[in-house]
Amino acid sequence: MPSNKSVVYLKHPTEFPVVGEHLAVQTNPDFRPVLKDGEVLTRNLVFSLDPYMRGKMRDAGKQSYSASYEIGKPLDARGVAEVIESKNAKYPVGSIIHAFVGWEEYTVLPDLPTTRIIPGARETNLPLSSYVGVLGMPGLTAWASLKDIGKPKKGETIFISAASGAVGQLAGQLCKAWGLTVIGSVGSDDKVEYLLKNVGFDAAFNYKTKSPKDALKELAPQGIDIYFENTGGLALEAALDHLNNFGRIIACGMISQYNTREPYGIKNLMNVVTKRLTMRGFIVSDFHDQYFADFFKDVREMLLNKQIVYRVDEAQGIDNAPEAFVGMLSGKNFGKAVVHVADL
Amino acid sequence: MPSNKSVVYLKHPTEFPVVGEHLAVQTNPDFRPVLKDGEVLTRNLVFSLDPYMRGKMRDAGKQSYSASYEIGKPLDARGVAEVIESKNAKYPVGSIIHAFVGWEEYTVLPDLPTTRIIPGARETNLPLSSYVGVLGMPGLTAWASLKDIGKPKKGETIFISAASGAVGQLAGQLCKAWGLTVIGSVGSDDKVEYLLKNVGFDAAFNYKTKSPKDALKELAPQGIDIYFENTGGLALEAALDHLNNFGRIIACGMISQYNTREPYGIKNLMNVVTKRLTMRGFIVSDFHDQYFADFFKDVREMLLNKQIVYRVDEAQGIDNAPEAFVGMLSGKNFGKAVVHVADL
Repeated sequence: MPSNKSVVYLKHPTEFPVVGEHLAVQTNPDFRPVLKDGEVLTRNLVFSLDPYMRGKMRDAGKQSYSASYEIGKPLDARGVAEVIESKNAKYPVGSIIHAFVGWEEYTVLPDLPTTRIIPGARETNLPLSSYVGVLGMPGLTAWASLKDIGKPKKGETIFISAASGAVGQLAGQLCKAWGLTVIGSVGSDDKVEYLLKNVGFDAAFNYKTKSPKDALKELAPQGIDIYFENTGGLALEAALDHLNNFGRIIACGMISQYNTREPYGIKNLMNVVTKRLTMRGFIVSDFHDQYFADFFKDVREMLLNKQIVYRVDEAQGIDNAPEAFVGMLSGKNFGKAVVHVADL
Repeated sequence: MPSNKSVVYLKHPTEFPVVGEHLAVQTNPDFRPVLKDGEVLTRNLVFSLDPYMRGKMRDAGKQSYSASYEIGKPLDARGVAEVIESKNAKYPVGSIIHAFVGWEEYTVLPDLPTTRIIPGARETNLPLSSYVGVLGMPGLTAWASLKDIGKPKKGETIFISAASGAVGQLAGQLCKAWGLTVIGSVGSDDKVEYLLKNVGFDAAFNYKTKSPKDALKELAPQGIDIYFENTGGLALEAALDHLNNFGRIIACGMISQYNTREPYGIKNLMNVVTKRLTMRGFIVSDFHDQYFADFFKDVREMLLNKQIVYRVDEAQGIDNAPEAFVGMLSGKNFGKAVVHVADL
């Protein structure tokens, strides 16, 4: 371990981040960490790229639900890593852990409450990326927000935006398993085909060639009961018009609004009053204690029974992480975006 | 009873209704109704003018939560009336009832589930307009939506738009009684003074001379926990920015959006996600069965104990009803808008 390659945060972007200007790969040629009590040194194997990270690339002065990234420091992410040195009895050398690691090859990790050992990670056949995807935060996001906010009932119709993404594809499959009609919007014809042929959505459309408004009119003539909101903008406006009385909006994210200085104005919120809609936001960590164990058991069983397909878009190596991140922000990833750093 | 004067709905307005063009007073010079079984003839005493009525002045083809008004027929409203002829044993001659009557002197009323006798109406000292205001639908609107959606906790801060209106002034006083800090927005300096001196709000501002954004920054430096939404537009946008984590928006109405073809676009809904806000709409009739009895008991007691002041803006006579209605839509009323038709 003579060197450690990292992706470092350079500057706050006002619109889309630019590789080289706002974040860049840097190598520390002389990486010889000395651990303090409680710390471990990790060899990072895979980490997750998620839309919420764009929110951490902000002016440090602006408050939000998670701390902003620090200029000059590596970005961080939920990842799977091997402990290769340890001054913490909870995580002996050789443990495979789920933790907030840097976007880098090696991380010195303090004793954080978010770190945990993944039991059976070496023995199971599930790819390690599952633990940051369908069995990790995006999976819990879909499962818990459906249970807590969406309250899906058999026979209802759900519309999911960014439906081939990490959260969307699981949300759709859970709702199919629970007896709902599932409609998804995505940004390419390939993704439409994937949702229809591989994932089992009832209907899907490409919002770049068909407006959400027209698509919902055609695909959901009886209206929708739940909208799983990942994008904001025109999809939200169309959903507000097409929701039935007492409809629910799971406000999970609004990715179309993250990289713009001119957010789209939603003009039809009056539907919230006339149709008695509920729109509720959440942060997945709010749900962790209440739901994680049930979610993990339920979805792992569905995975092992092949009831769920789950597509991963894996960038290879730290060098490709910045482009993969920016690509994800504009919808170029096809499936859950992760970075493969090293083999186990 | 040789004649009956009514306000008739003439035409669907796209923006503000115009008296004479969209609604007008007409007199039926030869009004000699013959009642069928189940019907009663009422002498109308007072009726309520409410923002929701604008929503019923729409194209009959457009769906909403209440039926649209019928062209060529009298408008209707919740009112208090005396039964002067009866073919319905439930409502003997002389009963004082609360019912959906026409905007007119006399109405032939079928047997509707919304009609009920007001017990003790002749004996009590409460003005009859109370039964369509603070003890009627607007009162229940404030009380039940606070209980069911706002879930106010002692020590929290609530912001109420259209705060001197029928719903707003009661909502504010209930919240004061429950230990909250109460801030209101209104459209004139007179109303600001009324809220501060007579109603007991902690703070109030005139949105025509101070933007809701600036006002909330100044008046609620710790943020707000509940927004009682009556107006939409800039007040909603400011509230979204100033709500604290887990804040609630009671989506009661958006009067600023009712009379325009160019609704205002809300650009900061991302706050719903990052601050885990809940925004929920409702229709007061959804709450009736669950809450009416408790509400009536609670608020009547507060009224009799002089814990509540409640201002009424009373137009005199059918002839003045159309102007009073249009005035209310632009905020010219000062207190709950009602029309006094006749003395008991």
